[in-house]
Amino acid sequence: MIEIISVPVERQGLHDITHQVAQLLDEAAWGEGLCTLFVQHTSASLLIQENYDATARHDLEAWLNRLVPENDALYTHTLEGADDMPAHIKAALTATNLAIPIIDNKLALGTWQGLFLWEHRKSGGRRKIIVHLGP
Amino acid sequence: MIEIISVPVERQGLHDITHQVAQLLDEAAWGEGLCTLFVQHTSASLLIQENYDATARHDLEAWLNRLVPENDALYTHTLEGADDMPAHIKAALTATNLAIPIIDNKLALGTWQGLFLWEHRKSGGRRKIIVHLGP
Amino acid sequence: MIEIISVPVERQGLHDITHQVAQLLDEAAWGEGLCTLFVQHTSASLLIQENYDATARHDLEAWLNRLVPENDALYTHTLEGADDMPAHIKAALTATNLAIPIIDNKLALGTWQGLFLWEHRKSGGRRKIIVHLGP
Repeated sequence: MIEIISVPVERQGLHDITHQVAQLLDEAAWGEGLCTLFVQHTSASLLIQENYDATARHDLEAWLNRLVPENDALYTHTLEGADDMPAHIKAALTATNLAIPIIDNKLALGTWQGLFLWEHRKSGGRRKIIVHLGP
Repeated sequence: MIEIISVPVERQGLHDITHQVAQLLDEAAWGEGLCTLFVQHTSASLLIQENYDATARHDLEAWLNRLVPENDALYTHTLEGADDMPAHIKAALTATNLAIPIIDNKLALGTWQGLFLWEHRKSGGRRKIIVHLGP
Repeated sequence: MIEIISVPVERQGLHDITHQVAQLLDEAAWGEGLCTLFVQHTSASLLIQENYDATARHDLEAWLNRLVPENDALYTHTLEGADDMPAHIKAALTATNLAIPIIDNKLALGTWQGLFLWEHRKSGGRRKIIVHLGP
């Protein structure tokens, strides 16, 4: 089974999509299997991270922004905006796809794991994620 | 088929789990398919790396520890210990899940590839990895 | 279904394999499902990235080469050449496997997404990628 979900992003950073994917799983009543997520963009990524303390996510975003700054003299790909090349690098360092086992109709996430879309551009818009449910 | 394996970790760094997963595959006699591993924690990750020369693994750990040091002035998430925020960042830069093809009942790893749990905390304990075998 | 593809690499950096994998999909006529790629090496990785503007790929390679330079005083694993330890680190920071949904017999890549083998050594040769097609 394949579904496409669309995630509105209004800013750079982590967007919690745990509930949206969990709801899709609830409706599918898939039993046991594997849920694969795939983001169809090269300047956004998928991440499983701490779902509880927002300061951990804040520090993670700040750390990556410092590691991959805008306006680095190294960049030659600059026509699409100062946040474009850092976005491609950040996407390359993180995940385009995730696979999470399904047990009893639910994502088998650990207690502190949430599911996030990590938007690396500042412009906002909508991002498409393909959700594949397999046996 | 879904199994959960528990890995004892006694220190920060790479823990070889190749044998433990291979044994599970031996018992399953799965033929051909796909083995997906998923670690249920946000401060540990999964890695496929050089299985032969321990100096390569040592350098990899040392390099990441230097890139993501403890007590960085940037961190605001500090209540859970000096190794906690670096652990979340290291986990975000590495993999929460891996998928390895199964051929003739075995993981189709390359000659020099080993399978590791990468513990990013110093405290030790046990880590849970879900192993999913699919067609 | 499992197939092994062999990719000739003549230099360090990104090698576009989109067409090679798409051709395999065309021949398989798989309908709907999941395509998993697994690279059997510890100094090469798999990447989904911008397929259009070569400057983005150039900057990505240059940025990672600067982050993980050769001849770092930290390295103790130096017997296999100056590009060997950086190659292991780069492989650990990027992906050994990718999973891409299949819709209507085709990889469900986004408009700007290409599929690349990222060779981290300079010596060249051939790299083996296992392609698994699942339901």
